[in-house]
Amino acid sequence: MSMRRRAMGPPLPVPTLIARKRDGGALTDAEIRAVIAGATNGTIPEYQIAALLMAIVWRGLDARELVTWAEAMIASGDRLDLSSIRGRKVDKHSTGGVGDKISLCLAPLVAACGVPVPMMSGRGLGHTGGTLDKLEAIPGFRTALPPARFKRVLERAGLVLAGQSARLVPADRLLYALRDATATVESIPLIASSILSKKVAEGADALVMDVKVGRGAFLPSRARARELARTLVTLGRRLGLEVRALLTAMDEPLGLEIGNANELAEAIAVLRGEGPADVRALTLRLGAEMLLLGRAATTRAEATTRLEGALASGDGLERLALCVRLHGGDARVIDDPTRLPRAPRVHVVRAPRAGVVTVVDAGALGRAATLLGAGRLRKEDRVDPGVGLTLHAKQGTRVGRGDALCTVRYAEAARLGATRAAIAGAFQLGARAPAAAPLVLETIG
Amino acid sequence: MSMRRRAMGPPLPVPTLIARKRDGGALTDAEIRAVIAGATNGTIPEYQIAALLMAIVWRGLDARELVTWAEAMIASGDRLDLSSIRGRKVDKHSTGGVGDKISLCLAPLVAACGVPVPMMSGRGLGHTGGTLDKLEAIPGFRTALPPARFKRVLERAGLVLAGQSARLVPADRLLYALRDATATVESIPLIASSILSKKVAEGADALVMDVKVGRGAFLPSRARARELARTLVTLGRRLGLEVRALLTAMDEPLGLEIGNANELAEAIAVLRGEGPADVRALTLRLGAEMLLLGRAATTRAEATTRLEGALASGDGLERLALCVRLHGGDARVIDDPTRLPRAPRVHVVRAPRAGVVTVVDAGALGRAATLLGAGRLRKEDRVDPGVGLTLHAKQGTRVGRGDALCTVRYAEAARLGATRAAIAGAFQLGARAPAAAPLVLETIG
Repeated sequence: MSMRRRAMGPPLPVPTLIARKRDGGALTDAEIRAVIAGATNGTIPEYQIAALLMAIVWRGLDARELVTWAEAMIASGDRLDLSSIRGRKVDKHSTGGVGDKISLCLAPLVAACGVPVPMMSGRGLGHTGGTLDKLEAIPGFRTALPPARFKRVLERAGLVLAGQSARLVPADRLLYALRDATATVESIPLIASSILSKKVAEGADALVMDVKVGRGAFLPSRARARELARTLVTLGRRLGLEVRALLTAMDEPLGLEIGNANELAEAIAVLRGEGPADVRALTLRLGAEMLLLGRAATTRAEATTRLEGALASGDGLERLALCVRLHGGDARVIDDPTRLPRAPRVHVVRAPRAGVVTVVDAGALGRAATLLGAGRLRKEDRVDPGVGLTLHAKQGTRVGRGDALCTVRYAEAARLGATRAAIAGAFQLGARAPAAAPLVLETIG
Repeated sequence: MSMRRRAMGPPLPVPTLIARKRDGGALTDAEIRAVIAGATNGTIPEYQIAALLMAIVWRGLDARELVTWAEAMIASGDRLDLSSIRGRKVDKHSTGGVGDKISLCLAPLVAACGVPVPMMSGRGLGHTGGTLDKLEAIPGFRTALPPARFKRVLERAGLVLAGQSARLVPADRLLYALRDATATVESIPLIASSILSKKVAEGADALVMDVKVGRGAFLPSRARARELARTLVTLGRRLGLEVRALLTAMDEPLGLEIGNANELAEAIAVLRGEGPADVRALTLRLGAEMLLLGRAATTRAEATTRLEGALASGDGLERLALCVRLHGGDARVIDDPTRLPRAPRVHVVRAPRAGVVTVVDAGALGRAATLLGAGRLRKEDRVDPGVGLTLHAKQGTRVGRGDALCTVRYAEAARLGATRAAIAGAFQLGARAPAAAPLVLETIG
């Protein structure tokens, strides 16, 4: 029997299928297609979708259901055709971390090595930042590109750093808003289908997933992060998208900068061959995976050498400047990051006593930065590109009493007052340095 | 800290509390009050309520949460004050069975023994019938009574058999409609709070709960039925309502009649001292509990004797006739049940071979009766009072080949066609009679 025919049959008994999922059963392919179509065109009321989403958080989706769910989401909108652009198109996505500005240095560097990077990113919500917000710290930078312009930028710069088009995967926009309002975000099949449906629709051939683990991560436990990574790899294979997932540490922030202009400036520094070791190392590691997936290198060592060359030659930085210009942005910030917006006031958090920094709590600092205005608590909040934190010490740094731990750049005294104690409390001092933890914990796929 | 004050504080972060319930945590009293108030006045969107309801189906409510939930539902509307009527007011409620016409003979009989019975009932939805639908088989019978009239009928007849007033527990009406549409009905705390909030609001002092178990019951498993019974007793105690719960068998239908006019006629027969033994026995047993709860008898034996007296004297029947008149109904049907509506056509299901009836599947017959028009699949369906089934054999009856098992009274040939096989299939024949099962399985509270 044709599934398509069944989906167009008599009206779906929605409570019946919610009950089946509630009781641990599976939905048929036709039911899943009808649910996604009904959610997208509004013929199934949001309260029924919300109850079903919670039942899915509870009971999950099996492998077959998940593939159908993701395919139905992809089918809800347009799909970019990037076949006219040569080479395998490789994207990178992170589950979100604090100080995670990797995309900003990674994409230009990989593009400079000949692998096209069609990147559609999101805005920050909650304690982790969003790549679009960081890019919009550049005066004039436009993240909303129509499909033809998206392709043109990708063709000319080798990378494009755009926002999600309204015409791609409209089902995800609707479902995501509903999930956000109904505490049904934290479901591995729902997360995996939301991420991969957009990557398939944007025309990527392969994807490197950075799945964050730890205090500052969306999924704090390693077991859950691993489960998500495996789900992404398996689902990707079924959708024709080659996925490699890396579990990476997010206990302390990445690098020294948190906040939109702060992070952009740090990414530029990395592309200049400067910047903190952890940001550089993770950029090279994720970049090597992207070159391998893009068939631009055959070994990780070869890939790393090429990326290091693009750093040393300044080719990566040049790609970023070109990309910024093609997005309508003021590329002078690349040469002179002091042109980036900066909040007017500064507060320095100092060590209350001598010791070794044992913890720099990424979650606490991410939440504080959000409250300062660097992120959003609600979708409708506006971010202030110029506020942020600069760390002067990370885990293992030895400090004396009164040494600066962190510089807070802020605009409103009340917001500083609301976050000051939390920022100071994010740093813990001890007698001896903690064991150095690896940045990349596991590679899956 | 005053909970009331907290409830009027800053807007509730609804996704936060949904997430807490989703993760197995508890809601505060203030949060529960705010949820029920927000659901009732529409300030919390239905999709958030729906997600929370599914999380409650998943994680439950603890004892404290359940009491607060029920109290908040009661507080959502008016509460009848029956204190001007002497004696303890005792109601009876059933979780719903097939052929369950007990309320119709029970309430008049208990009233005749001096215990006031303020009964607010519902309509049938799904395979079990509703008391209101059965009463509306009587020409002119009005189930919608304003509060003053409800009290007057109770005062004069000793019983009142009305529908739920729109002003009592409006939260339940909204939540029930949402639960029905989102497959979140089957949750013991939600069921218990829905039932008891209405009983407290209608002014009852005590309640006998008939919790059905078996093939034709809403909760088929005995363990779940017992859990519901215990929850009702405990919650009732906390709400100031004395509850006694009986687990009773619902594998085969109660009595011989299924359908609205059919069942009313059978209830009248019981009040005449006739009628099937199981209906009579369950009426006497539930009635005895009501007399005990109403302090109109001190032992079950004494209570039973009084009820048998009211049957023998015709006092019970007289009470029903008075009640029907006060509800605006044509009381001539009491003396002459042939005045009740009757569907025009008849079909007889016959035994395909000789044997002993081992199963009469109440669920299957209930669903068939619903499809014939005796019940509703959707709230907006209209019932036909004159359609129904008359059983000629029950479990243990020995039949010869071709003997009548069941007479179907129907109005539309298509509906008979759709149910005929299911009706025949509801009867199973074997070589020997099954062990007689007790009607009352357990008493709790």
